[in-house]
Amino acid sequence: MNVETREEIYNQARAWVLQAGTIIREKINDPLTVETKSNPNDLVTHMDKETEQFFASLIKETYPDHSLLSEEGFGDDLQSLVDTVWIVDPIDGTMNFVHQKRNFAISIGIYHDGIGEIGLIYNVMDDILYSAKRGEGAYKNDDRLAHLRENVQLHEAILSLNHFWLCENRLVDETRMQHLVKTVRGTRTYGSAALEFAYVAEGILDGYLTLSLAPWDVAAGIVIVNEVGGVTTTISGEPVDMLGRNSVFTGNPAIRKPVIKDFIEKGKK
Amino acid sequence: MNVETREEIYNQARAWVLQAGTIIREKINDPLTVETKSNPNDLVTHMDKETEQFFASLIKETYPDHSLLSEEGFGDDLQSLVDTVWIVDPIDGTMNFVHQKRNFAISIGIYHDGIGEIGLIYNVMDDILYSAKRGEGAYKNDDRLAHLRENVQLHEAILSLNHFWLCENRLVDETRMQHLVKTVRGTRTYGSAALEFAYVAEGILDGYLTLSLAPWDVAAGIVIVNEVGGVTTTISGEPVDMLGRNSVFTGNPAIRKPVIKDFIEKGKK
Repeated sequence: MNVETREEIYNQARAWVLQAGTIIREKINDPLTVETKSNPNDLVTHMDKETEQFFASLIKETYPDHSLLSEEGFGDDLQSLVDTVWIVDPIDGTMNFVHQKRNFAISIGIYHDGIGEIGLIYNVMDDILYSAKRGEGAYKNDDRLAHLRENVQLHEAILSLNHFWLCENRLVDETRMQHLVKTVRGTRTYGSAALEFAYVAEGILDGYLTLSLAPWDVAAGIVIVNEVGGVTTTISGEPVDMLGRNSVFTGNPAIRKPVIKDFIEKGKK
Repeated sequence: MNVETREEIYNQARAWVLQAGTIIREKINDPLTVETKSNPNDLVTHMDKETEQFFASLIKETYPDHSLLSEEGFGDDLQSLVDTVWIVDPIDGTMNFVHQKRNFAISIGIYHDGIGEIGLIYNVMDDILYSAKRGEGAYKNDDRLAHLRENVQLHEAILSLNHFWLCENRLVDETRMQHLVKTVRGTRTYGSAALEFAYVAEGILDGYLTLSLAPWDVAAGIVIVNEVGGVTTTISGEPVDMLGRNSVFTGNPAIRKPVIKDFIEKGKK
Protein backbone atom coordinates (compact mmCIF):
# COMPACT_ATOMS: atom_id res chain seq x y z
CA MET A 1 0.00 0.00 0.00
CA ASN A 2 1.60 3.29 -0.99
CA VAL A 3 1.78 6.14 1.46
CA GLU A 4 -0.65 8.47 -0.35
CA THR A 5 -3.34 5.78 -0.63
CA ARG A 6 -2.84 4.92 3.02
CA GLU A 7 -3.12 8.55 4.08
CA GLU A 8 -6.40 8.90 2.19
CA ILE A 9 -7.84 5.70 3.70
CA TYR A 10 -6.64 6.70 7.17
CA ASN A 11 -8.37 10.08 6.97
CA GLN A 12 -11.57 8.46 5.77
CA ALA A 13 -11.52 5.76 8.45
CA ARG A 14 -10.76 8.31 11.17
CA ALA A 15 -13.69 10.51 10.10
CA TRP A 16 -16.07 7.52 10.12
CA VAL A 17 -14.89 6.36 13.55
CA LEU A 18 -15.46 9.80 15.05
CA GLN A 19 -18.87 10.00 13.37
CA ALA A 20 -19.90 6.56 14.68
CA GLY A 21 -18.70 7.60 18.13
CA THR A 22 -20.87 10.70 18.06
CA ILE A 23 -23.93 8.59 17.20
CA ILE A 24 -23.18 6.15 20.05
CA ARG A 25 -22.75 9.01 22.54
CA GLU A 26 -26.06 10.54 21.44
CA LYS A 27 -27.83 7.20 21.99
CA ILE A 28 -25.98 6.07 25.13
CA ASN A 29 -29.00 6.46 27.40
CA ASP A 30 -31.56 4.94 24.99
CA PRO A 31 -33.05 1.56 25.95
CA LEU A 32 -30.82 -1.31 24.78
CA THR A 33 -31.72 -4.61 23.14
CA VAL A 34 -29.26 -7.09 24.63
CA GLU A 35 -28.87 -10.63 23.27
CA THR A 36 -26.32 -13.30 24.04
CA LYS A 37 -24.09 -15.19 21.61
CA SER A 38 -21.73 -18.07 22.41
CA ASN A 39 -22.57 -18.02 26.14
CA PRO A 40 -24.78 -16.03 28.56
CA ASN A 41 -21.99 -13.50 29.15
CA ASP A 42 -21.12 -13.01 25.47
CA LEU A 43 -23.35 -10.01 24.87
CA VAL A 44 -24.43 -8.21 21.72
CA THR A 45 -26.73 -5.21 21.40
CA HIS A 46 -28.53 -3.53 18.54
CA MET A 47 -25.90 -0.78 18.80
CA ASP A 48 -23.09 -3.26 18.00
CA LYS A 49 -25.02 -4.33 14.93
CA GLU A 50 -26.05 -0.85 13.80
CA THR A 51 -22.51 0.47 14.22
CA GLU A 52 -21.04 -2.43 12.25
CA GLN A 53 -23.63 -1.89 9.51
CA PHE A 54 -22.70 1.80 9.43
CA PHE A 55 -19.07 0.87 8.68
CA ALA A 56 -19.97 -1.99 6.31
CA SER A 57 -22.16 0.22 4.08
CA LEU A 58 -19.62 3.04 3.91
CA ILE A 59 -16.67 0.72 3.22
CA LYS A 60 -18.47 -1.26 0.49
CA GLU A 61 -19.73 1.95 -1.17
CA THR A 62 -16.45 3.89 -0.99
CA TYR A 63 -13.98 1.03 -1.45
CA PRO A 64 -15.78 -1.71 -3.40
CA ASP A 65 -12.53 -3.67 -3.86
CA HIS A 66 -11.75 -3.77 -0.12
CA SER A 67 -12.91 -6.63 2.12
CA LEU A 68 -14.39 -6.54 5.60
CA LEU A 69 -13.71 -8.93 8.47
CA SER A 70 -15.99 -8.13 11.37
CA GLU A 71 -17.75 -9.40 14.46
CA GLU A 72 -21.48 -9.10 13.94
CA GLY A 73 -22.13 -10.66 10.55
CA PHE A 74 -21.96 -7.80 8.05
CA GLY A 75 -18.48 -8.74 6.84
CA ASP A 76 -17.12 -11.07 4.17
CA ASP A 77 -16.28 -14.74 4.56
CA LEU A 78 -12.54 -14.43 4.02
CA GLN A 79 -10.07 -17.25 3.40
CA SER A 80 -7.06 -14.97 3.07
CA LEU A 81 -5.88 -11.44 3.73
CA VAL A 82 -4.86 -10.52 0.15
CA ASP A 83 -5.44 -6.92 -0.93
CA THR A 84 -6.98 -4.50 1.55
CA VAL A 85 -9.02 -5.81 4.48
CA TRP A 86 -10.78 -3.75 7.14
CA ILE A 87 -10.93 -5.66 10.43
CA VAL A 88 -13.68 -4.08 12.51
CA ASP A 89 -15.04 -4.44 16.03
CA PRO A 90 -17.89 -1.92 16.23
CA ILE A 91 -18.02 -2.07 20.05
CA ASP A 92 -15.14 -3.78 21.79
CA GLY A 93 -16.05 -4.35 25.44
CA THR A 94 -19.79 -4.87 24.97
CA MET A 95 -20.22 -5.92 28.61
CA ASN A 96 -18.77 -2.57 29.70
CA PHE A 97 -21.00 -0.83 27.14
CA VAL A 98 -24.10 -2.52 28.60
CA HIS A 99 -23.24 -2.36 32.31
CA GLN A 100 -21.07 0.74 32.55
CA LYS A 101 -21.94 2.91 29.54
CA ARG A 102 -18.24 3.59 29.21
CA ASN A 103 -14.88 1.79 28.94
CA PHE A 104 -15.59 0.43 25.43
CA ALA A 105 -14.03 1.22 22.07
CA ILE A 106 -14.48 1.12 18.32
CA SER A 107 -11.54 -0.86 16.93
CA ILE A 108 -10.48 -0.81 13.26
CA GLY A 109 -7.35 -2.36 11.79
CA ILE A 110 -6.67 -1.98 8.08
CA TYR A 111 -4.37 -4.62 6.61
CA HIS A 112 -2.88 -4.91 3.13
CA ASP A 113 -1.68 -8.33 1.98
CA GLY A 114 -1.64 -9.37 5.62
CA ILE A 115 0.42 -6.42 6.84
CA GLY A 116 -1.13 -4.05 9.37
CA GLU A 117 -1.06 -0.56 7.85
CA ILE A 118 -3.52 1.41 10.00
CA GLY A 119 -4.84 1.00 13.54
CA LEU A 120 -7.62 3.03 15.18
CA ILE A 121 -8.96 2.46 18.70
CA TYR A 122 -11.55 4.99 19.81
CA ASN A 123 -12.54 5.27 23.47
CA VAL A 124 -15.97 6.60 22.62
CA MET A 125 -17.15 8.08 25.93
CA ASP A 126 -13.79 9.68 26.78
CA ASP A 127 -13.40 10.93 23.18
CA ILE A 128 -9.85 9.61 22.99
CA LEU A 129 -8.54 8.22 19.71
CA TYR A 130 -5.47 6.00 19.70
CA SER A 131 -4.11 5.72 16.16
CA ALA A 132 -1.13 4.56 14.13
CA LYS A 133 0.10 4.14 10.60
CA ARG A 134 2.85 1.59 10.04
CA GLY A 135 6.26 3.26 10.36
CA GLU A 136 4.83 6.65 11.30
CA GLY A 137 4.42 6.32 15.08
CA ALA A 138 1.40 6.00 17.33
CA TYR A 139 -0.78 8.80 18.70
CA LYS A 140 -3.22 9.46 21.53
CA ASN A 141 -5.40 12.13 19.95
CA ASP A 142 -2.75 14.56 18.63
CA ASP A 143 0.03 13.56 21.00
CA ARG A 144 2.66 11.16 19.77
CA LEU A 145 3.10 8.23 22.16
CA ALA A 146 6.58 7.65 23.54
CA HIS A 147 8.60 4.50 22.88
CA LEU A 148 7.97 1.92 25.62
CA ARG A 149 10.26 2.04 28.65
CA GLU A 150 13.56 0.14 28.32
CA ASN A 151 14.73 -2.47 30.83
CA VAL A 152 11.40 -3.00 32.56
CA GLN A 153 11.79 -5.77 35.12
CA LEU A 154 9.00 -8.30 35.52
CA HIS A 155 8.75 -7.59 39.26
CA GLU A 156 8.09 -3.92 38.48
CA ALA A 157 5.59 -4.60 35.68
CA ILE A 158 1.82 -4.09 35.64
CA LEU A 159 0.05 -6.83 33.74
CA SER A 160 -3.53 -6.94 32.56
CA LEU A 161 -5.23 -10.31 32.48
CA ASN A 162 -8.64 -11.82 32.91
CA HIS A 163 -9.34 -13.72 36.14
CA PHE A 164 -10.01 -16.90 34.11
CA TRP A 165 -6.23 -17.38 33.72
CA LEU A 166 -6.19 -18.19 37.45
CA CYS A 167 -9.03 -20.72 37.22
CA GLU A 168 -8.71 -24.16 35.69
CA ASN A 169 -8.38 -23.56 31.93
CA ARG A 170 -7.48 -25.56 28.85
CA LEU A 171 -4.23 -23.73 28.06
CA VAL A 172 -2.04 -23.26 31.12
CA ASP A 173 -1.75 -24.72 34.62
CA GLU A 174 -3.43 -22.09 36.77
CA THR A 175 -0.93 -22.47 39.60
CA ARG A 176 1.84 -21.17 37.30
CA MET A 177 -0.33 -18.16 36.49
CA GLN A 178 -0.98 -17.60 40.20
CA HIS A 179 2.78 -17.55 40.65
CA LEU A 180 3.01 -14.95 37.86
CA VAL A 181 0.43 -12.77 39.63
CA LYS A 182 2.56 -12.89 42.77
CA THR A 183 5.72 -12.07 40.81
CA VAL A 184 4.64 -8.91 39.00
CA ARG A 185 4.07 -5.58 40.74
CA GLY A 186 0.36 -5.44 39.99
CA THR A 187 -2.46 -6.82 37.88
CA ARG A 188 -5.47 -5.14 36.32
CA THR A 189 -8.59 -6.18 34.35
CA TYR A 190 -10.47 -3.61 32.28
CA GLY A 191 -12.79 -5.71 30.11
CA SER A 192 -11.94 -4.31 26.67
CA ALA A 193 -9.13 -5.95 24.68
CA ALA A 194 -8.84 -2.96 22.37
CA LEU A 195 -8.43 -0.54 25.27
CA GLU A 196 -5.99 -2.90 26.96
CA PHE A 197 -3.85 -2.84 23.78
CA ALA A 198 -4.12 0.97 23.80
CA TYR A 199 -3.02 1.11 27.45
CA VAL A 200 -0.03 -1.11 26.60
CA ALA A 201 0.87 1.33 23.79
CA GLU A 202 0.52 4.22 26.22
CA GLY A 203 2.84 2.44 28.67
CA ILE A 204 0.32 2.40 31.54
CA LEU A 205 0.25 -1.40 31.31
CA ASP A 206 3.47 -3.32 30.59
CA GLY A 207 1.67 -6.31 29.15
CA TYR A 208 -1.73 -7.84 28.44
CA LEU A 209 -2.38 -11.58 28.38
CA THR A 210 -5.54 -13.07 26.98
CA LEU A 211 -6.81 -16.61 26.48
CA SER A 212 -8.76 -16.36 23.23
CA LEU A 213 -9.30 -13.38 20.97
CA ALA A 214 -10.76 -12.93 17.49
CA PRO A 215 -8.99 -10.90 14.76
CA TRP A 216 -11.25 -7.85 15.32
CA ASP A 217 -10.19 -7.75 18.98
CA VAL A 218 -6.50 -7.36 18.14
CA ALA A 219 -6.07 -6.05 14.58
CA ALA A 220 -5.90 -2.34 15.43
CA GLY A 221 -4.03 -2.90 18.68
CA ILE A 222 -1.21 -4.82 17.03
CA VAL A 223 -0.48 -1.93 14.65
CA ILE A 224 -0.53 0.65 17.44
CA VAL A 225 1.58 -1.39 19.89
CA ASN A 226 4.14 -2.08 17.12
CA GLU A 227 4.72 1.63 16.65
CA VAL A 228 5.94 2.18 20.22
CA GLY A 229 8.29 -0.82 20.17
CA GLY A 230 5.86 -3.34 21.68
CA VAL A 231 5.44 -6.92 20.52
CA THR A 232 2.37 -9.09 20.04
CA THR A 233 2.46 -12.88 19.68
CA THR A 234 0.46 -15.90 20.72
CA ILE A 235 1.37 -17.25 24.14
CA SER A 236 3.57 -19.77 22.33
CA GLY A 237 5.54 -16.89 20.81
CA GLU A 238 4.09 -17.45 17.32
CA PRO A 239 2.69 -14.71 15.06
CA VAL A 240 -1.02 -14.06 15.59
CA ASP A 241 -3.21 -15.71 12.94
CA MET A 242 -5.43 -12.91 11.66
CA LEU A 243 -8.03 -15.37 10.31
CA GLY A 244 -8.49 -17.41 13.49
CA ARG A 245 -8.73 -17.16 17.26
CA ASN A 246 -5.56 -16.77 19.31
CA SER A 247 -4.23 -16.65 22.82
CA VAL A 248 -2.31 -13.39 22.90
CA PHE A 249 0.53 -11.66 24.73
CA THR A 250 1.09 -8.02 23.86
CA GLY A 251 3.47 -5.78 25.68
CA ASN A 252 6.91 -4.55 26.40
CA PRO A 253 9.51 -6.86 24.79
CA ALA A 254 11.52 -6.77 28.03
CA ILE A 255 8.89 -8.83 29.84
CA ARG A 256 7.64 -11.03 26.99
CA LYS A 257 10.40 -13.60 27.34
CA PRO A 258 10.13 -14.10 31.12
CA VAL A 259 6.32 -14.23 30.99
CA ILE A 260 6.32 -16.85 28.23
CA LYS A 261 9.45 -18.87 29.15
CA ASP A 262 9.27 -18.84 32.94
CA PHE A 263 5.51 -19.03 33.46
CA ILE A 264 3.40 -19.97 30.47
CA GLU A 265 5.69 -22.61 28.90
CA LYS A 266 6.30 -24.27 32.27
CA GLY A 267 2.56 -24.56 32.83
CA LYS A 268 1.46 -25.38 29.32
CA LYS A 269 -1.01 -28.20 28.84
CA MET B 1 -23.25 16.27 64.39
CA ASN B 2 -25.89 18.82 63.53
CA VAL B 3 -26.75 19.54 59.93
CA GLU B 4 -25.40 23.12 59.85
CA THR B 5 -22.03 22.10 61.30
CA ARG B 6 -21.85 19.22 58.85
CA GLU B 7 -22.65 21.48 55.91
CA GLU B 8 -19.89 23.88 56.90
CA ILE B 9 -17.35 21.06 57.33
CA TYR B 10 -18.44 19.47 54.05
CA ASN B 11 -17.93 22.72 52.12
CA GLN B 12 -14.51 23.21 53.68
CA ALA B 13 -13.41 19.61 53.01
CA ARG B 14 -14.68 19.78 49.42
CA ALA B 15 -12.75 23.00 48.77
CA TRP B 16 -9.54 21.50 50.17
CA VAL B 17 -9.92 18.31 48.13
CA LEU B 18 -10.34 20.25 44.90
CA GLN B 19 -7.37 22.46 45.82
CA ALA B 20 -5.15 19.43 46.57
CA GLY B 21 -6.27 17.89 43.26
CA THR B 22 -5.23 21.01 41.36
CA ILE B 23 -1.78 20.87 42.95
CA ILE B 24 -1.39 17.18 42.05
CA ARG B 25 -2.47 17.80 38.45
CA GLU B 26 0.04 20.66 38.14
CA LYS B 27 2.84 18.40 39.38
CA ILE B 28 1.80 15.16 37.66
CA ASN B 29 4.75 15.16 35.25
CA ASP B 30 7.39 16.20 37.80
CA PRO B 31 9.99 13.57 38.76
CA LEU B 32 8.69 11.32 41.55
CA THR B 33 10.43 10.02 44.65
CA VAL B 34 9.10 6.50 45.08
CA GLU B 35 9.74 4.46 48.22
CA THR B 36 8.30 1.16 49.38
CA LYS B 37 6.56 0.36 52.67
CA SER B 38 5.36 -3.05 53.88
CA ASN B 39 6.51 -4.83 50.68
CA PRO B 40 8.19 -3.94 47.36
CA ASN B 41 4.80 -3.27 45.74
CA ASP B 42 3.44 -1.10 48.58
CA LEU B 43 4.52 2.25 47.16
CA VAL B 44 4.61 5.72 48.61
CA THR B 45 5.78 8.92 46.94
CA HIS B 46 6.62 12.40 48.17
CA MET B 47 3.28 13.49 46.67
CA ASP B 48 1.36 11.14 49.02
CA LYS B 49 3.22 12.68 51.96
CA GLU B 50 2.92 16.30 50.81
CA THR B 51 -0.78 15.91 50.11
CA GLU B 52 -1.43 14.34 53.50
CA GLN B 53 0.56 17.12 55.17
CA PHE B 54 -1.53 19.68 53.26
CA PHE B 55 -4.71 18.22 54.79
CA ALA B 56 -3.16 17.67 58.24
CA SER B 57 -2.06 21.30 58.59
CA LEU B 58 -5.38 22.72 57.42
CA ILE B 59 -7.47 20.39 59.59
CA LYS B 60 -5.42 21.00 62.74
CA GLU B 61 -5.43 24.76 62.18
CA THR B 62 -9.13 25.10 61.31
CA TYR B 63 -10.58 22.39 63.55
CA PRO B 64 -8.18 21.98 66.48
CA ASP B 65 -10.65 19.71 68.29
CA HIS B 66 -10.98 17.26 65.36
CA SER B 67 -8.74 14.19 65.02
CA LEU B 68 -7.02 12.80 61.95
CA LEU B 69 -6.59 9.14 61.02
CA SER B 70 -4.40 8.87 57.94
CA GLU B 71 -2.01 6.72 55.93
CA GLU B 72 1.35 8.45 55.79
CA GLY B 73 2.09 9.38 59.40
CA PHE B 74 0.76 12.91 59.87
CA GLY B 75 -2.34 11.75 61.74
CA ASP B 76 -3.12 11.04 65.39
CA ASP B 77 -2.69 7.75 67.20
CA LEU B 78 -6.36 7.06 67.88
CA GLN B 79 -7.82 4.48 70.23
CA SER B 80 -11.43 5.42 69.52
CA LEU B 81 -13.63 7.35 67.12
CA VAL B 82 -15.24 9.73 69.65
CA ASP B 83 -15.97 13.25 68.45
CA THR B 84 -15.07 14.22 64.90
CA VAL B 85 -12.42 12.25 63.03
CA TRP B 86 -11.15 12.89 59.50
CA ILE B 87 -10.06 9.64 57.88
CA VAL B 88 -7.79 10.54 54.98
CA ASP B 89 -6.02 8.74 52.15
CA PRO B 90 -4.16 11.47 50.28
CA ILE B 91 -3.57 9.27 47.22
CA ASP B 92 -5.55 6.02 47.05
CA GLY B 93 -4.13 3.85 44.26
CA THR B 94 -0.51 4.94 44.56
CA MET B 95 0.60 2.22 42.12
CA ASN B 96 -1.72 3.70 39.49
CA PHE B 97 -0.46 7.18 40.39
CA VAL B 98 3.15 6.08 39.81
CA HIS B 99 2.67 3.84 36.76
CA GLN B 100 -0.35 5.35 35.05
CA LYS B 101 -0.54 8.97 36.21
CA ARG B 102 -4.27 8.47 36.47
CA ASN B 103 -6.88 6.17 38.08
CA PHE B 104 -6.13 7.34 41.64
CA ALA B 105 -8.18 9.33 44.12
CA ILE B 106 -8.11 11.50 47.20
CA SER B 107 -10.38 9.84 49.77
CA ILE B 108 -11.76 11.59 52.86
CA GLY B 109 -14.34 10.20 55.25
CA ILE B 110 -15.50 12.37 58.15
CA TYR B 111 -16.97 10.43 61.10
CA HIS B 112 -18.62 11.69 64.27
CA ASP B 113 -18.76 9.35 67.24
CA GLY B 114 -18.10 6.48 64.84
CA ILE B 115 -20.87 7.39 62.39
CA GLY B 116 -19.91 8.28 58.84
CA GLU B 117 -21.26 11.77 58.14
CA ILE B 118 -19.37 12.86 55.00
CA GLY B 119 -17.64 10.98 52.19
CA LEU B 120 -15.51 12.51 49.42
CA ILE B 121 -13.70 10.53 46.72
CA TYR B 122 -11.99 12.67 44.11
CA ASN B 123 -10.76 11.13 40.86
CA VAL B 124 -8.06 13.74 40.44
CA MET B 125 -7.09 13.38 36.78
CA ASP B 126 -10.67 13.03 35.53
CA ASP B 127 -11.81 15.88 37.83
CA ILE B 128 -14.75 13.83 39.09
CA LEU B 129 -15.86 14.21 42.70
CA TYR B 130 -18.03 11.53 44.28
CA SER B 131 -19.57 12.86 47.48
CA ALA B 132 -22.21 12.16 50.08
CA LYS B 133 -23.60 13.43 53.35
CA ARG B 134 -25.42 10.91 55.53
CA GLY B 135 -29.10 10.89 54.67
CA GLU B 136 -28.78 13.41 51.85
CA GLY B 137 -27.91 11.17 48.89
CA ALA B 138 -24.72 10.64 46.90
CA TYR B 139 -23.44 12.71 44.00
CA LYS B 140 -21.08 12.40 41.05
CA ASN B 141 -20.06 16.02 40.64
CA ASP B 142 -23.46 17.77 40.60
CA ASP B 143 -25.51 14.76 39.50
CA ARG B 144 -27.34 12.78 42.14
CA LEU B 145 -26.56 9.06 41.88
CA ALA B 146 -29.51 6.72 41.44
CA HIS B 147 -30.45 4.04 43.97
CA LEU B 148 -28.73 0.74 43.11
CA ARG B 149 -30.62 -1.61 40.77
CA GLU B 150 -33.14 -3.93 42.45
CA ASN B 151 -33.15 -7.71 41.96
CA VAL B 152 -29.66 -8.02 40.52
CA GLN B 153 -28.86 -11.69 39.99
CA LEU B 154 -25.38 -12.93 40.79
CA HIS B 155 -24.98 -14.42 37.30
CA GLU B 156 -25.62 -10.97 35.83
CA ALA B 157 -23.34 -9.10 38.24
CA ILE B 158 -19.98 -7.47 37.61
CA LEU B 159 -17.62 -7.90 40.52
CA SER B 160 -14.35 -6.17 41.17
CA LEU B 161 -11.67 -8.15 42.96
CA ASN B 162 -7.94 -8.42 43.12
CA HIS B 163 -6.32 -11.46 41.46
CA PHE B 164 -4.88 -12.53 44.84
CA TRP B 165 -8.31 -13.90 45.82
CA LEU B 166 -7.70 -16.62 43.20
CA CYS B 167 -4.24 -17.49 44.51
CA GLU B 168 -3.59 -19.35 47.74
CA ASN B 169 -4.46 -16.90 50.53
CA ARG B 170 -4.99 -16.97 54.28
CA LEU B 171 -8.73 -16.20 54.24
CA VAL B 172 -10.61 -18.29 51.68
CA ASP B 173 -10.04 -21.45 49.67
CA GLU B 174 -9.09 -20.10 46.25
CA THR B 175 -11.04 -22.79 44.39
CA ARG B 176 -14.31 -21.40 45.85
CA MET B 177 -13.33 -17.97 44.60
CA GLN B 178 -12.51 -19.40 41.17
CA HIS B 179 -16.00 -20.83 41.14
CA LEU B 180 -17.36 -17.37 42.00
CA VAL B 181 -15.45 -15.87 39.07
CA LYS B 182 -17.08 -18.41 36.76
CA THR B 183 -20.53 -17.71 38.25
CA VAL B 184 -20.71 -13.94 37.85
CA ARG B 185 -21.07 -12.20 34.50
CA GLY B 186 -17.72 -10.47 34.63
CA THR B 187 -14.82 -9.43 36.85
CA ARG B 188 -12.71 -6.30 36.88
CA THR B 189 -9.65 -4.97 38.75
CA TYR B 190 -8.92 -1.23 38.81
CA GLY B 191 -6.29 -0.88 41.53
CA SER B 192 -7.88 1.86 43.67
CA ALA B 193 -10.20 0.82 46.50
CA ALA B 194 -11.69 4.31 46.76
CA LEU B 195 -12.55 4.38 43.06
CA GLU B 196 -13.92 0.84 43.26
CA PHE B 197 -16.27 1.99 46.05
CA ALA B 198 -17.25 4.96 43.87
CA TYR B 199 -17.96 2.65 40.91
CA VAL B 200 -20.14 0.49 43.16
CA ALA B 201 -22.07 3.63 44.19
CA GLU B 202 -22.41 4.55 40.54
CA GLY B 203 -23.76 1.07 39.76
CA ILE B 204 -21.10 0.25 37.17
CA LEU B 205 -19.81 -2.47 39.50
CA ASP B 206 -22.30 -4.57 41.48
CA GLY B 207 -19.77 -5.46 44.15
CA TYR B 208 -16.17 -5.12 45.24
CA LEU B 209 -14.36 -7.71 47.34
CA THR B 210 -11.05 -7.06 49.00
CA LEU B 211 -8.76 -9.05 51.25
CA SER B 212 -7.33 -6.40 53.57
CA LEU B 213 -8.03 -2.69 53.71
CA ALA B 214 -7.15 0.08 56.15
CA PRO B 215 -9.75 2.59 57.45
CA TRP B 216 -8.56 5.34 55.04
CA ASP B 217 -9.22 3.00 52.08
CA VAL B 218 -12.90 2.58 52.95
CA ALA B 219 -14.09 5.44 55.18
CA ALA B 220 -15.37 7.73 52.42
CA GLY B 221 -16.60 4.87 50.26
CA ILE B 222 -18.82 3.41 52.98
CA VAL B 223 -20.68 6.73 53.39
CA ILE B 224 -21.17 7.14 49.64
CA VAL B 225 -22.25 3.52 48.99
CA ASN B 226 -24.73 3.72 51.91
CA GLU B 227 -26.52 6.64 50.29
CA VAL B 228 -27.47 4.64 47.17
CA GLY B 229 -28.70 1.62 49.14
CA GLY B 230 -25.48 -0.37 49.05
CA VAL B 231 -24.02 -2.30 51.97
CA THR B 232 -20.49 -2.67 53.29
CA THR B 233 -19.37 -5.39 55.72
CA THR B 234 -16.39 -7.62 56.36
CA ILE B 235 -16.47 -10.88 54.40
CA SER B 236 -17.94 -12.49 57.52
CA GLY B 237 -20.87 -10.08 57.34
CA GLU B 238 -19.66 -8.07 60.38
CA PRO B 239 -19.46 -4.28 60.56
CA VAL B 240 -16.14 -2.87 59.36
CA ASP B 241 -13.81 -1.94 62.25
CA MET B 242 -12.76 1.64 61.51
CA LEU B 243 -9.68 1.37 63.72
CA GLY B 244 -8.25 -1.83 62.21
CA ARG B 245 -7.70 -3.68 58.95
CA ASN B 246 -10.61 -5.55 57.37
CA SER B 247 -11.55 -7.86 54.55
CA VAL B 248 -14.41 -6.05 52.85
CA PHE B 249 -17.43 -6.68 50.67
CA THR B 250 -19.23 -3.60 49.41
CA GLY B 251 -22.01 -3.67 46.90
CA ASN B 252 -25.57 -4.26 45.97
CA PRO B 253 -27.42 -5.98 48.86
CA ALA B 254 -29.01 -8.37 46.36
CA ILE B 255 -25.69 -10.10 45.76
CA ARG B 256 -24.10 -9.77 49.20
CA LYS B 257 -25.82 -12.82 50.64
CA PRO B 258 -25.02 -15.26 47.80
CA VAL B 259 -21.42 -14.04 47.58
CA ILE B 260 -20.86 -14.47 51.31
CA LYS B 261 -23.05 -17.54 52.02
CA ASP B 262 -22.49 -19.60 48.88
CA PHE B 263 -18.86 -18.82 48.17
CA ILE B 264 -16.87 -17.15 50.94
CA GLU B 265 -18.33 -19.04 53.93
CA LYS B 266 -18.02 -22.37 52.17
CA GLY B 267 -14.35 -21.70 51.47
CA LYS B 268 -13.42 -19.98 54.69
CA LYS B 269 -10.22 -21.06 56.43
